[in-house]
Amino acid sequence: MTAVAIRQLSTAQPDFEAAFQQVLHWSAETDDAIEARVADILAEVRRHGDAAVLRYTALFDHLDVASVAALELTRDELKAAFDAITPAQRAALESAAQRVRSYHERQKEASGLSWQYRDEDGTLLGQKVTPLDRVGIYVPGGKAAYPSSVLMNAIPAHVAGVGEIIMVVPTPRGEKNPLVLAAAYVAGVSRAFTVGGAQAVAALAYGTATIPRVDKITGPGNAYVAAAKRRVFGQVGIDMIAGPSEILVLADGSTPPDWVAMDLFSQAEHDELAQSILLCPDAAYIDQVRAAIDRLIDGMPRRDVIRASLEGRGALILTKDMDEACAISNRIAPEHLEVSSREPHRWEPQLRHAGAIFLGAFTSESLGDYCAGPNHVLPTSGTARFSSPLGVYDFQKRSSLIEVSEAGAQVLGPIAAELAYGEGLQAHAQAAEFRLKR
Amino acid sequence: MTAVAIRQLSTAQPDFEAAFQQVLHWSAETDDAIEARVADILAEVRRHGDAAVLRYTALFDHLDVASVAALELTRDELKAAFDAITPAQRAALESAAQRVRSYHERQKEASGLSWQYRDEDGTLLGQKVTPLDRVGIYVPGGKAAYPSSVLMNAIPAHVAGVGEIIMVVPTPRGEKNPLVLAAAYVAGVSRAFTVGGAQAVAALAYGTATIPRVDKITGPGNAYVAAAKRRVFGQVGIDMIAGPSEILVLADGSTPPDWVAMDLFSQAEHDELAQSILLCPDAAYIDQVRAAIDRLIDGMPRRDVIRASLEGRGALILTKDMDEACAISNRIAPEHLEVSSREPHRWEPQLRHAGAIFLGAFTSESLGDYCAGPNHVLPTSGTARFSSPLGVYDFQKRSSLIEVSEAGAQVLGPIAAELAYGEGLQAHAQAAEFRLKR
Repeated sequence: MTAVAIRQLSTAQPDFEAAFQQVLHWSAETDDAIEARVADILAEVRRHGDAAVLRYTALFDHLDVASVAALELTRDELKAAFDAITPAQRAALESAAQRVRSYHERQKEASGLSWQYRDEDGTLLGQKVTPLDRVGIYVPGGKAAYPSSVLMNAIPAHVAGVGEIIMVVPTPRGEKNPLVLAAAYVAGVSRAFTVGGAQAVAALAYGTATIPRVDKITGPGNAYVAAAKRRVFGQVGIDMIAGPSEILVLADGSTPPDWVAMDLFSQAEHDELAQSILLCPDAAYIDQVRAAIDRLIDGMPRRDVIRASLEGRGALILTKDMDEACAISNRIAPEHLEVSSREPHRWEPQLRHAGAIFLGAFTSESLGDYCAGPNHVLPTSGTARFSSPLGVYDFQKRSSLIEVSEAGAQVLGPIAAELAYGEGLQAHAQAAEFRLKR
Repeated sequence: MTAVAIRQLSTAQPDFEAAFQQVLHWSAETDDAIEARVADILAEVRRHGDAAVLRYTALFDHLDVASVAALELTRDELKAAFDAITPAQRAALESAAQRVRSYHERQKEASGLSWQYRDEDGTLLGQKVTPLDRVGIYVPGGKAAYPSSVLMNAIPAHVAGVGEIIMVVPTPRGEKNPLVLAAAYVAGVSRAFTVGGAQAVAALAYGTATIPRVDKITGPGNAYVAAAKRRVFGQVGIDMIAGPSEILVLADGSTPPDWVAMDLFSQAEHDELAQSILLCPDAAYIDQVRAAIDRLIDGMPRRDVIRASLEGRGALILTKDMDEACAISNRIAPEHLEVSSREPHRWEPQLRHAGAIFLGAFTSESLGDYCAGPNHVLPTSGTARFSSPLGVYDFQKRSSLIEVSEAGAQVLGPIAAELAYGEGLQAHAQAAEFRLKR
C-alpha cells in the first residue's frame, strides 16, 4: 500500500538536464567473464559440432540425451501442442498471426520488391531483391518465453520467402512451453530444436551434423546469447542486440489516467530494468496518473517487478508544452512511443525517432505487441536513431543489377577511366577502355 | 615475363571440393593486440575528447596542431581542391556523381518511402521512413584513398535526406589528396576533419567538443578502423566490416578473352588479398584467358600486386556447364559477379547471392565501380548471403505507425488479452481490456 516512489521532474527545474541524463543512463557494459565463456563455447561447437552441443545442453539445461536428433521437435509435436491449448488460445494465436502476416505482406509490397529501369543509352540499372535461404530464430525459454515473439520473428521471414526457418529454444530439464510450440506451428517454422544459449547460436552460425548452418540469426536472448550473436556477426547476419524494453507516453491529458497508468505498468512488468516515462504539459493530469498508479498497483500480480522498474528507472516529466515533449521524445528515441492525445496527427510529424508510434487513446502498446500487425521487435536504448523494427527487409537482401549497353559503354568508359587513373588503378581504367570502339 | 601461376581447377577432378574450399578459405581472425589498442583509444577519446584526438593524430599521423578546429577542412578548401584538379577530372567527378545520385533517387522511390493503410475497422497501420539526423563517413588516407568512395558513401546519405554528413579522412604529415577533397565538395559533405584511425571513429561515435556525435558511421578502413567500428556498434550504427574485394566472372566464352583478363586484373590490383575467379564450361576459352593474362600482365604498372593476388587467391575453374557455374557462384556469394555471356538474362534468375551482378560483355566491373550509378560498397566474403549494397536504406530508419480505432480496439483487445494472460503479462492484458466498452 506504500505509494510508488516514481521520479517526478519538470523541465522548468534548474537541474533538469542532469536529472534527465540520470534517468536515461543505461550502460550495456560487457562482462569479461561472460565474453570469455562464450568465446570458448563458440570454439568448441565449431570444432566438435553435435558433441559439443550435447555436452553444453546437458550442463546448462540438465537435459541428457543420446543425440542432437533427439532434441529436434517434430512437426507432429508442434501440431500436438497446438491441438492441446484452449480453443480461445488457438483462435487468438491464429488471429494474431493472420494480422501480422497481412501487415508484413503490405510491407513487402511497399519496400521489398525488385525494380529496374533503362537509361537513355539502353543501359539497365536496378536491384534484385531475394529472400535469405535459411534463417535461425532464437526463442528464449524460462521466464521470458513469449509465443508472440515466435510469430513476430518467423512470420516476416516467411513472408520474405525464406526457404527454411530453424527455431531453437532451450527447454531446461525438458520443460516445454506449449504456447511457444503452438506458435511455432502457427507461424510455419520449418524445423525446431530444444537447444539454447551460446551453444545454439554457435550451432546455427557454423552448422553441425544435425543442425544446419543458417544465413542470419534473429531473436532476443540473455547476456550469453547476446554476446554470442555479437561474436558470430559477419559469419552470419544478426538482427540487433536488444537492451531493456522502454515505453514513452506523450500525453496531453485527454486519455483516462487509468489507461496511461496501465500502459506504464505494461512496460514495467517485463523486467526491473524496463523503463516507463510519461511526458505531459499538464501538472494536474500527472497527479491523476500518479494517483492511478498508486491505486492500481496492488491489484497487479507482477507488482514487485512493476514497482522496482518504476522506482528505479521510471519518470513522470512535466513539460512546458506538447512541442517540448516532442523534442524530448526525439532525444530519447524510445522503443515504444504512445501519443496519447486528442490530436495525435498534430504531433506525429514532429516525432523523428521511435521504434513504433502508437497514436491516440485507444492504441495501447499491448495491442501493438500482440496483434495489431506491426512487429514488436523494435530498436531499444536510443538505437531508433539509426535502426528499424524487425521486418520483411531483414530477411531479404539486394543485389545491384547493371547491364551496360554498347552505347552506354562509350559514354561511361571515359568517365570511369579518368577516375581510375586518378586513383592509380590502371587495370580498372583499361577494362573500361577495352570496351570502347577503336 | 614468367607465366602467372594462377590455380586451375575442374569440377570434374576428384579432389575438386577440397581444392575449392582452399580457394575460398579466408579468415578474418581478430588480432588481440589491435583489439586492446583500439579499446584504449576509444576509452581515451570518450574520456578526454578533443585532447585525446589531438594526441593520437600527432602520434599516428605526425600532424601536430593546436586544436581539433585546426583539423577541420573548410568548404572553401574543398572548393579550392575542386577548382585545382584538371577539367577532365572535374567533369568525370560530376558525371559520376550525377549518375550515382540519379540511381539512388530511384532506389529511394522504389523502397524508401513511407506507407500506410487503414483496415476494415478504421485502424491505421503503416511505416514512417525518416532520414538519420547525422552520419559520419570514414575515408581512408594513404594507398587506398579513393575519391569514388566519397561519392558512394555521401550521395546515398544526401539522397536519403540526412541533415549533416561529417567526413573524416587521415592526412598523414598533412598530405591531402586533392581528388578526395574535390569529391567531398561534389558530394556535398557538410563538414570534414583530417582525423583518421580508431580515434576518428571514437570521435564520431561519442562526440567531442569540436567533432559532433553522429548516428551512424559508414566507410572502409584498416584493421584499427574495422575493430573500432565493431566496438562502437550499438552506440551508433555501422555499415559493414569489409573483407578483401572479390570478383567472380561467369563466362560462356563469348567475350573477348582480353576483356575478361583485364576484369580479373582490375580486382587483383586492389590488394594482394583480393580474389579473382573465373568459372567457365569452355576449356579452350579458359586457355585463351590464361594466355591473355600472361600477355597483358607485364604492361600493368601494378603487376606485382596483380600477380601476387592471382597466384595467391585467384582461380580458373572449368565447370560442366553454365548451370553448374551458377550453382558454384551461389556457394561463393561473390561481391562482384560478372555474367560475361551472350545470354546474361538466361542465367541471372539462377543467381541468388551477389553484391552486384554485371550483365553482358560490355559491363566491366570498373564501369560499375565508378559511374554506372549503383553503389560500389558491397558485401564481401560471402556476406551477400544476408546483406546488401550500401544504399539510401542505410541512411534511413523506419518507425511503425499504429492508430487503433475505437472499433478496432474492441476486436484486438480480447486477442491481445488472451495472449498476454498466456504469457503471464497481466498489465498488458488489462491495458487492452481497459479499452473495451464496458
